Amino acid sequence: MSTDSESDFPVPETKVLAVASHVVYGYVGNTMATFVMQSLGCEVAALNTVQFSISPFSSPTVPPYRTEHVHTGNHLGYGQAKGTRAKASEITDLYDGLKDSYLDDFDMMLSGYLPGAASVEALGTIARDLKYKATMKPGSFFWVLDPVMGDNGKLYVAEDVVPAYKELVKHADLILPNQFEAETLSGVKIVDMETLKKAITTLHEQYRIPHIMITSIALPTPGAEPSLSVVGSTFTSGLTPRIFGIKIPAIDCFFSGTGDMFAALILVRFREAVHNTEGLSSKPAWVSDDDVEATELPLAKATEKVLASMNEVLTKTKEKRDEELEKFNNRVVGRGDESEKRLKLATSKATEVRLVRNLPCLRHPEVKFRAENV
Amino acid sequence: MSTDSESDFPVPETKVLAVASHVVYGYVGNTMATFVMQSLGCEVAALNTVQFSISPFSSPTVPPYRTEHVHTGNHLGYGQAKGTRAKASEITDLYDGLKDSYLDDFDMMLSGYLPGAASVEALGTIARDLKYKATMKPGSFFWVLDPVMGDNGKLYVAEDVVPAYKELVKHADLILPNQFEAETLSGVKIVDMETLKKAITTLHEQYRIPHIMITSIALPTPGAEPSLSVVGSTFTSGLTPRIFGIKIPAIDCFFSGTGDMFAALILVRFREAVHNTEGLSSKPAWVSDDDVEATELPLAKATEKVLASMNEVLTKTKEKRDEELEKFNNRVVGRGDESEKRLKLATSKATEVRLVRNLPCLRHPEVKFRAENV
Repeated sequence: MSTDSESDFPVPETKVLAVASHVVYGYVGNTMATFVMQSLGCEVAALNTVQFSISPFSSPTVPPYRTEHVHTGNHLGYGQAKGTRAKASEITDLYDGLKDSYLDDFDMMLSGYLPGAASVEALGTIARDLKYKATMKPGSFFWVLDPVMGDNGKLYVAEDVVPAYKELVKHADLILPNQFEAETLSGVKIVDMETLKKAITTLHEQYRIPHIMITSIALPTPGAEPSLSVVGSTFTSGLTPRIFGIKIPAIDCFFSGTGDMFAALILVRFREAVHNTEGLSSKPAWVSDDDVEATELPLAKATEKVLASMNEVLTKTKEKRDEELEKFNNRVVGRGDESEKRLKLATSKATEVRLVRNLPCLRHPEVKFRAENV
Repeated sequence: MSTDSESDFPVPETKVLAVASHVVYGYVGNTMATFVMQSLGCEVAALNTVQFSISPFSSPTVPPYRTEHVHTGNHLGYGQAKGTRAKASEITDLYDGLKDSYLDDFDMMLSGYLPGAASVEALGTIARDLKYKATMKPGSFFWVLDPVMGDNGKLYVAEDVVPAYKELVKHADLILPNQFEAETLSGVKIVDMETLKKAITTLHEQYRIPHIMITSIALPTPGAEPSLSVVGSTFTSGLTPRIFGIKIPAIDCFFSGTGDMFAALILVRFREAVHNTEGLSSKPAWVSDDDVEATELPLAKATEKVLASMNEVLTKTKEKRDEELEKFNNRVVGRGDESEKRLKLATSKATEVRLVRNLPCLRHPEVKFRAENV
């Protein structure tokens, strides 16, 4: 009999409620997050807010490819998805079904795409219920929230979703906005380091969010190679930010689902880092003591591992993609609309993140990019 | 960077369309099958026919526990599930969405629970489409069908589902009925070895199904230890059955989702066995030459591995379950209806198959039970 190698997993037994979208083909939303978290040893209860055949977001023109490495929410898609959205009442019902059977003993929650303001509110009720149960046992429930609203200056949800999210994030322990979402929530346009700090400070102070990760920041640095930063902070007891940043080389390719991959990985790696810090897992919201420096935060250590895994998986994905597209281009001739459509779809398909066959990259990443003070 | 260890996976790259139920909590249907197949290196497109909070089937009285080891379809459940069924048109739409984007290049299909006769018919249309595309390339598409209809002498689907399945199975390459479903499809009541052979012969001849696995056979053997058999057959070019059986020790516990676990594992292990037999993967329906003995069939070799994995995972599940129930019993006092309900629910919960943390059992099983001629 194979031995049960508990030590193979970075976290102790962890039950996660994952509320996000489901697609039949490809890795976005829960389809991405579930496998990532399960592979790292978590029990995942996937509550699907929509079921689409494929990612419903439309594909950018190719080439040239958009440069988006760590990217939340806006998936490269096939532009012709079919499927259905769950009503807010269905989301509530599914949760009530768990509760009725005493199956709501979750250690963590990961929430992503919600199909409208009513479902954002439904999630709020679920979150308050889970948090309320944990009040007598600080640190026993932790919520990672990805406020999926838009990207690159554009909302891709209805306008009433924004105020609903502004209410929701007040209850989250860690939020994962992209630059646009951080701007939307904080009301601060991020154009330089000063405004970046101001946005993070606002999120800590105004919404009392303990941990913030802005998953993709592109500030203009004239003359430099294109690179992206991920910027995070855990507040102190006085709500002061402790900001760290990690610069990563941009991969010249537009992947879909990387925001969901980041979210799933940071959930696991943050729990791991907290679990390995004595006494921290029983502190409210896992907030480190005030004397811990930004770059020494468990959140910073977790992010280093997350970005290492992502860089490995995406580099391998890009290699395979280029091989496949070369084969495709050698096979397909003609320049009509139909062959252009096929190229676009073939590109989307070839760019699907290669997940299941790159398990070692998820499980044993080699850290290359280190957190720095900002 | 971690190396991409292709050799870690038993199968070459394999794209599977998985059409079955989804539950938020626990492992049944696609929730079980998806993770099992992904862990073994398959790309899985999960098309969910229902979304329930938990398995909707009701729990047996405890104790004594039902003795059902390898068991298809009838899940131990919590008796109070909430959720929604997909309409047949939604199933069709989701598939069409894939097709529109040229994402229907599946190597295999695994189909399980369908919520009614209309959705059985919708799946038939999908299957014919996938099979039609493969006609010029024998062996390039293979369909594993679990005809979920009932168990222990009882239907748990509407009566019109039965004739719909009788039409459907004609197109399948491998079917996985339990004893009751085999009886329902063949019209032969299985009471001894003779009638077992007759049922299998009927399925081969009448429906032209190349491969059959009856996933749980309990024939009375007076005076013997309780044991279960799994019985399979691959027909010859003359439609003669080649029947093998594997006896497994019964685990004194009623697990849910084991039929789905069996289905997912046999899909992977059969593909592996076929891939390792020269020339077989390009033969229609992967049917072995007539000179291959029953116990030497790739299906028999695959089943040995499947049962080894299952025995390991379920043994570990049972151990953990007993520990948890002991803790529960020490904590809960009282004998009222409420505490009885809680015990029942706690038992269901403790008996959930321990999947994610027993990955090595899935990936590297140690074969203990061997196929024998029947």
